[in-house]
Amino acid sequence: MMCAWAGKILYVDLTKEKIREKELPKEWCIKFIGGRGINAKLLWDLVKPGIDPLSPDNVLIFGTGALTGTNAPSSGRTTVTCKGVLTNLYLKCSMGGYWGAELKYAGYDHIVIMGASKDPVYIWINNGEVEIRDASHLWGKDVRETNKILQSDLGDRDIQAVCIGPAGENLVKYACIMGSFYNAAARGGCGAVMGSKKLKAIAVRGSGELTIKYPDKFMELVYNLKGKLQNYVRVKRLYMYGTAGGVKGYSDFYDLPSFNWQKDRIDGAEKISGEYLVEKGYLKRRVGCFSCSISCHRYTEVDHGLYAGTFSGGPEYETVFALGSTVGVTDTEAVLKANELCNILGLDTISTGVTIAWAMETYSRGIFSKEDTDGIELKFGNADALVKVIPMIAYRQGKIGNLLAEGAKRAAEQIGHDSWKWAMVNSKGLEHSGVDTRFVKGYALSFAVNPRGCDHLHTQVICEYGYSPEAFKIIEKITGDKKWASPRYTEYRAEIVRYYEDCYAVTDALGFCTFTGYYIHEDPDVMAELLSLASGITFTATDLMNIGRRIITLEKCFNVREGADRSYDDLPWRIMNEPAPEGPVKGYVTSLNELGKMLDRYYELHEWDPKTSWPYKETLIKLGLEEVAEELAKLDKLPKR
Amino acid sequence: MMCAWAGKILYVDLTKEKIREKELPKEWCIKFIGGRGINAKLLWDLVKPGIDPLSPDNVLIFGTGALTGTNAPSSGRTTVTCKGVLTNLYLKCSMGGYWGAELKYAGYDHIVIMGASKDPVYIWINNGEVEIRDASHLWGKDVRETNKILQSDLGDRDIQAVCIGPAGENLVKYACIMGSFYNAAARGGCGAVMGSKKLKAIAVRGSGELTIKYPDKFMELVYNLKGKLQNYVRVKRLYMYGTAGGVKGYSDFYDLPSFNWQKDRIDGAEKISGEYLVEKGYLKRRVGCFSCSISCHRYTEVDHGLYAGTFSGGPEYETVFALGSTVGVTDTEAVLKANELCNILGLDTISTGVTIAWAMETYSRGIFSKEDTDGIELKFGNADALVKVIPMIAYRQGKIGNLLAEGAKRAAEQIGHDSWKWAMVNSKGLEHSGVDTRFVKGYALSFAVNPRGCDHLHTQVICEYGYSPEAFKIIEKITGDKKWASPRYTEYRAEIVRYYEDCYAVTDALGFCTFTGYYIHEDPDVMAELLSLASGITFTATDLMNIGRRIITLEKCFNVREGADRSYDDLPWRIMNEPAPEGPVKGYVTSLNELGKMLDRYYELHEWDPKTSWPYKETLIKLGLEEVAEELAKLDKLPKR
Repeated sequence: MMCAWAGKILYVDLTKEKIREKELPKEWCIKFIGGRGINAKLLWDLVKPGIDPLSPDNVLIFGTGALTGTNAPSSGRTTVTCKGVLTNLYLKCSMGGYWGAELKYAGYDHIVIMGASKDPVYIWINNGEVEIRDASHLWGKDVRETNKILQSDLGDRDIQAVCIGPAGENLVKYACIMGSFYNAAARGGCGAVMGSKKLKAIAVRGSGELTIKYPDKFMELVYNLKGKLQNYVRVKRLYMYGTAGGVKGYSDFYDLPSFNWQKDRIDGAEKISGEYLVEKGYLKRRVGCFSCSISCHRYTEVDHGLYAGTFSGGPEYETVFALGSTVGVTDTEAVLKANELCNILGLDTISTGVTIAWAMETYSRGIFSKEDTDGIELKFGNADALVKVIPMIAYRQGKIGNLLAEGAKRAAEQIGHDSWKWAMVNSKGLEHSGVDTRFVKGYALSFAVNPRGCDHLHTQVICEYGYSPEAFKIIEKITGDKKWASPRYTEYRAEIVRYYEDCYAVTDALGFCTFTGYYIHEDPDVMAELLSLASGITFTATDLMNIGRRIITLEKCFNVREGADRSYDDLPWRIMNEPAPEGPVKGYVTSLNELGKMLDRYYELHEWDPKTSWPYKETLIKLGLEEVAEELAKLDKLPKR
Repeated sequence: MMCAWAGKILYVDLTKEKIREKELPKEWCIKFIGGRGINAKLLWDLVKPGIDPLSPDNVLIFGTGALTGTNAPSSGRTTVTCKGVLTNLYLKCSMGGYWGAELKYAGYDHIVIMGASKDPVYIWINNGEVEIRDASHLWGKDVRETNKILQSDLGDRDIQAVCIGPAGENLVKYACIMGSFYNAAARGGCGAVMGSKKLKAIAVRGSGELTIKYPDKFMELVYNLKGKLQNYVRVKRLYMYGTAGGVKGYSDFYDLPSFNWQKDRIDGAEKISGEYLVEKGYLKRRVGCFSCSISCHRYTEVDHGLYAGTFSGGPEYETVFALGSTVGVTDTEAVLKANELCNILGLDTISTGVTIAWAMETYSRGIFSKEDTDGIELKFGNADALVKVIPMIAYRQGKIGNLLAEGAKRAAEQIGHDSWKWAMVNSKGLEHSGVDTRFVKGYALSFAVNPRGCDHLHTQVICEYGYSPEAFKIIEKITGDKKWASPRYTEYRAEIVRYYEDCYAVTDALGFCTFTGYYIHEDPDVMAELLSLASGITFTATDLMNIGRRIITLEKCFNVREGADRSYDDLPWRIMNEPAPEGPVKGYVTSLNELGKMLDRYYELHEWDPKTSWPYKETLIKLGLEEVAEELAKLDKLPKR
């Protein structure tokens, strides 16, 4: 096999209890690189349209980045891909931690889980020895317990495991997959897919090696990049305060979705900020993922009071927004407790918080009575209610637990009363993450077109989260003028999103973290040089961006094959219809018309049909996706010009 | 079919006398555009390695550009492709005139001639009615007579024909194919291939239509571009004096290969210059090819003296160099006569002149006696000898005619005595065109890597033929600094050649003339816009350059499959070993070492193996040439890293 890649895909069929491995096709490495890219190709090939994502017909794919396991800065990430549970569409999640590197050292780049077991099992991968093992003693255990039992059973504290908690077992539609400890493949219900396969965990021990083609030059570049990253202001802040740094400022500038997006600020925002966690001693330790010197990951603990003993990873910005401001809670310790519960029960914090916020608004409008909520006073700001309802969701307990386990979209469909208007999901069905896309226009577009639903991890647009010299440079590079950096413009958002999309896809395919920002993630030249030196194959920046476009387009085509069209590329009703209520952003809305113009340009740049949003045949052929064009042609899903 | 293309390929099997047509695959249009690109794909698919180019196994392909037949400026060109006779390698020639547009109006984009007829035939294409007709009455006729007889036989003066003269019939190894009147698919012996198939001509009448997707926008852009071209200094000079303008200046600055590259200047150079032809009244008429307002094509006539009655198209710069300075002749009228003879007998003027120059040097060194030359005093400057020997070549008359009909490489191999050292061919076997690649370094590289042999039509490098504001802009775009525009540098030549290669391939695939220069041919953005507006398919500049690279690589792979390796990418012995003798360029040579460095960088930029010069598997896959990679793998011609 070529350098950098381990060279094998592991296929585990849980129905047939068959394990086999295949050589990773070199062609795929060249056309899709790895991680998210090759995962997308595997998903396209292996999942037939129209299947139930919780049936054995779904596949669950784990893919390490092409550079995962090397010491390229912050390159240890893994992509998890399957047909999503909340959306019935394409789903990919990126996860940090150490599991990916361990898998690669065990000899595998990708794992494909097919079929479903009758009884709970886990998979044990020990340097190329692979077993399907009984997991009846793990079933029902939370994430923390599961990891501890696995370490003990396998007699090795250095194993790395991914697992599901009770939420995944109970098929909560936004259950996540957790990597030890507290890294999450969070969104869209991939944990429920794992649960539907009765697969509790995949434990890995690897002690093999990877080859780097030009180790001296590679190391020199890595060293150089690490130096640059250390001096990068954004990176320094991530180390100091984590992703939750600056929350007070967001609130002060009316940029922190609160009370289910009824407001954009909240009193006491400082108490859920990263700075507060440091100052008040909640922060116990900063840690980095594999090969990462940024170390934004952290552990926090509550030493005293009602929630004493709470200990977990995080909380991230998205968590303090979802389990804090958007449910009206600024009680630090309650938010830390809610975060711990989600982590150990295996729940996506964003969907959990946004679904509860929907329930709170429904309650505040008098549509829910206490009977509907199993006696809980489910109103905004009730920290106790928040902490109570989370386990009920994970275990589908009571009326309210079972209802909210379905996510905001399905819950609103069950409840009616126009409650879909405040369910913060778009047509695809995923809960919106912590930005107000009424006035952050690049995100508005990016959230709308994201194949997995309206969240921020399709493209994290640099200028949307604060001005910086780096942001200005990138925006100037893309648009020709740094003035377009303002997030209030709708002009050039399509160009900006298109640039970042390609970067993002490549970043995920290589295994990089987006927090490497301007120095790696946003610079295809640097990524190309790293991959070329590691693999010995010359990739230019143009090659990489072209591969990025190929990946993005293949993901889009998965949704096209499932029946999605332009109408799926929208935003929650509130974002499109209810103006922001106060502050400098008062009156902002991203109307259908405004979004439509951005979408038109976005499809044009992609060379997709603006009516259907489907790629033209010739677009697919230019990208070397002939097999995709053929299949869509058979389904009559190639648009006519 | 899509707009712009006619939509059909015509296949004529002369052995089986079978005519069929197939729809032009849309995939090919997207991956190879048309003209040279689709021709290359057809050649790869249809010609097996190792065949004799003069056997029925060779195919002869005519391909119109994707925009040929539209009124895009200077877009009427046709590419002729086959396995070459002089080189046994890839051969493509580009031809101007009206034939391509006529073919498109008849409903065809490409014609593929397979097999060989027993008796002389011609093909008559009348708007989709295609016949193979007896040509016994045309066989032996020259190009002028052939066209006149065809017009009369078919009762239509508006037909367009391509045909061969006696040289093609007699399988002269550098016989050309002539389009009516006096446009040439000149190089490499494609006329001999046509002769080997006993195909005298292809006459076409078309009165159909082409569709333009966005006619208003297309017309506006065309109008705008024509305006720019009219004011372009280079274009004005081409109109005034043709390609032979400025010859005196080249000589004054020691930049005009003379006496078989023994010198770089010649007394009396002004008498073979375009300016002289205008001033002295030899020029009778300026004409443009289809859709061309540049009008560099011209007709010249000799009214009096020994060669009175001489009338033909041209002469071009390459002709006045080949039939003038390099054979030491500056007698205007003799050069015009030699030009006429080549045109009507169907000989490539470059190979004719350079082969005769080799013979003259051989004669001057006393290796040839008059017995060897059938009594002709074949010495430099003997205009009478020049005019006498050309028909002898075309008819393979006498010892000398038959010898020189083989081209300089084979003639030198027969004669021995180190005469290969002054045969101005490289390893591939094509006669070098009119530049001194000892000191024009971009051309040195470009001539060396040209798949068809060492000539100027692989990339015509803007800075190599004179400084201009446009040249500086392009060089700055490619290299970052306009100082690299000097043709004496070897640095950045690889980058420059790589840029122009891609441009050239696209230009030829679209049907454009390279004389549109800075405004079209060298600007992929403009070409992309024209093709997008005409076809309704969005092509970006990046798409086009990527397609260009795909075409170049496929052409390279044809040669790899035929057995070529890095040793084929060289220059004539004299260029590499014998310093330029005088003037400001005195002492210059392009040594093996110097060329080697440029080649190393060139292969690196291409992602080809520097040892063999073969493309890596991954390079082919990135370009969507999987089928090529598979075939080369079977032949063990994919280099190991």
